[in-house]
Amino acid sequence: MIKNDLFLRALKGETVDRPPVWMMRQAGRYLPEFMELRKKYDFFTRCQTPELASEITVQPIRRYGMDAAILFSDILVIPQAMDIEVQMKPNFGPYLPNPIRTAKDLESVVVPNIEDSLGYVLDAITMTKEKLDNEIPLIGFAGSPWTILCYCVEGQGSKSFDKARGFCFTQPEAAHKLLQKITDTTIAYLKAKVKAGVNAVQVFDSWGGMLSPMDYQEFSWQYIQQIVDALKDDAPVIVFGKGCWFALREMAQSGASAVGVDWTCSAQNARYLTGGQITLQGNFDPARLLSPPEKIKEMVRQMIQDFGKDKYVVNLGHGILPHIPLENAAAFIEAVKSYKE
Amino acid sequence: MIKNDLFLRALKGETVDRPPVWMMRQAGRYLPEFMELRKKYDFFTRCQTPELASEITVQPIRRYGMDAAILFSDILVIPQAMDIEVQMKPNFGPYLPNPIRTAKDLESVVVPNIEDSLGYVLDAITMTKEKLDNEIPLIGFAGSPWTILCYCVEGQGSKSFDKARGFCFTQPEAAHKLLQKITDTTIAYLKAKVKAGVNAVQVFDSWGGMLSPMDYQEFSWQYIQQIVDALKDDAPVIVFGKGCWFALREMAQSGASAVGVDWTCSAQNARYLTGGQITLQGNFDPARLLSPPEKIKEMVRQMIQDFGKDKYVVNLGHGILPHIPLENAAAFIEAVKSYKE
Repeated sequence: MIKNDLFLRALKGETVDRPPVWMMRQAGRYLPEFMELRKKYDFFTRCQTPELASEITVQPIRRYGMDAAILFSDILVIPQAMDIEVQMKPNFGPYLPNPIRTAKDLESVVVPNIEDSLGYVLDAITMTKEKLDNEIPLIGFAGSPWTILCYCVEGQGSKSFDKARGFCFTQPEAAHKLLQKITDTTIAYLKAKVKAGVNAVQVFDSWGGMLSPMDYQEFSWQYIQQIVDALKDDAPVIVFGKGCWFALREMAQSGASAVGVDWTCSAQNARYLTGGQITLQGNFDPARLLSPPEKIKEMVRQMIQDFGKDKYVVNLGHGILPHIPLENAAAFIEAVKSYKE
Repeated sequence: MIKNDLFLRALKGETVDRPPVWMMRQAGRYLPEFMELRKKYDFFTRCQTPELASEITVQPIRRYGMDAAILFSDILVIPQAMDIEVQMKPNFGPYLPNPIRTAKDLESVVVPNIEDSLGYVLDAITMTKEKLDNEIPLIGFAGSPWTILCYCVEGQGSKSFDKARGFCFTQPEAAHKLLQKITDTTIAYLKAKVKAGVNAVQVFDSWGGMLSPMDYQEFSWQYIQQIVDALKDDAPVIVFGKGCWFALREMAQSGASAVGVDWTCSAQNARYLTGGQITLQGNFDPARLLSPPEKIKEMVRQMIQDFGKDKYVVNLGHGILPHIPLENAAAFIEAVKSYKE
């Protein structure tokens, strides 16, 4: 059994003394110990070497003692496993040299066998679980099918993913075929992760907020719902969509254990839009971690009061930024761990 | 008097036979006649030469007959007039080589005399009014102070303007000084535009959606409210904030004549969040103009039904994209002009 099960209890909606805390991208570039490994090993080496991925996963836990670890990996391991080439270019980000633009481009896209193509992730989970030694739960994650499609079609990051949206609106049949292939792969991937030992899974819909509510239903939500349906009996599922305030009601009714919210949605709006019953996760503005530590602590305490200590997981509203001072991240975590009503 | 005053009547909330229509960035790169001029003249030459700016402004009107023209210009003429150097780099976008990062950087930032520094805009208005010959109204615009600050601090476009947000959160006093200088300049600028002949003004808060609701009040909304207060007796004011669904209530109660909404906010949500009384403007997903023309027409008719034909200005939810086919833009405009209940 997990010794600190605060996170899992919050996902179940149980009454707790204080909410649990972790940070999206907590195993990341703001940590000097991460930067040491980053100097020595390139991105995919870090992802694909279980010793490195597990070490990176536990680095923030050693330093700050969060209530959950999240396996170091990337959402783009999925298209890579589907035979879509993914490169990670320094000072540029992800680059997919052969983006999907036509129905014909889909022919070479496979739904892979997870053990064969992503066995390194499963090995990293085994190794991380050993390192965590049942102290805290481990989270596994995947991108939403829509968010993965965005990269597969655009071929790189983008402010508005116009090519990806254009693909869906001009070739909806091809788009749905690709989305279903990604969904099938993601379900098998997350099930394998749970089997390998993760205690909860999170689906990141980073670019869902680019779509109108109607298009969100068609091109994003229906596929996330498939994932929730397939996973919810295996492990608690957290659904997080950046900019997806308009879909919070569907998310809350989906069977997911918790819903993540970004910082544009106040606690009051988030509770109202989700119906007040489901566990919420979020939503500190990552840039607000640039405020002085005392101000961060004050804002975190206010945030917990606004969300309420129960049915709540303290987190940022998106990933931690690379240039956040260590003492500021410490102030964020400490304010939660010392919280008293 | 303006012959086609449909747009001004919609801003007043009067009953109309059909809603008026225009498109954000309608004088833009999707038009071959615009691209002809773009080949010959660089960005600031186009902005600063009244003959060119007025010609570009009326190009889409000649082709499509929108119900309002919007003066061709750029939100970054304001920092330029405030002695902050702004370059427009091909294939890169705006670049400010000396970004504001400290209180000291503010010392050289001036609140300029509008006639001296932006007289070319006023001349362009005079010339455009002659070309429009009272057929339709002319809109003038400015960026919100927060959105202008984003560029002044970041020094270029960005996905999340982390430097700009960091500046506000670490040096709030300096941020407020800069915001007030931009606000004072913007008020004088918009008043001069109205005096020169524009029939309405729109404030674009393109990056307001990066802020939490509390930070939005502090760093964006209070300055927009100053602008609305100063302008509303001179001309109808339209306030548009991309991603600012959480502030729609304040916008509706501000004294503005209309509130723009982006495509993530359904008509139903927009009417609910604004209290159901104010004129709304929007909100077709610009990427949805890539759909086939018949599909565009069907979606536009549905959008008008959802918003209702009164107290409504048909528009996109953000600027038109450069690669939209001409017949698709035509389908959008035509669907509104032929709308019958």
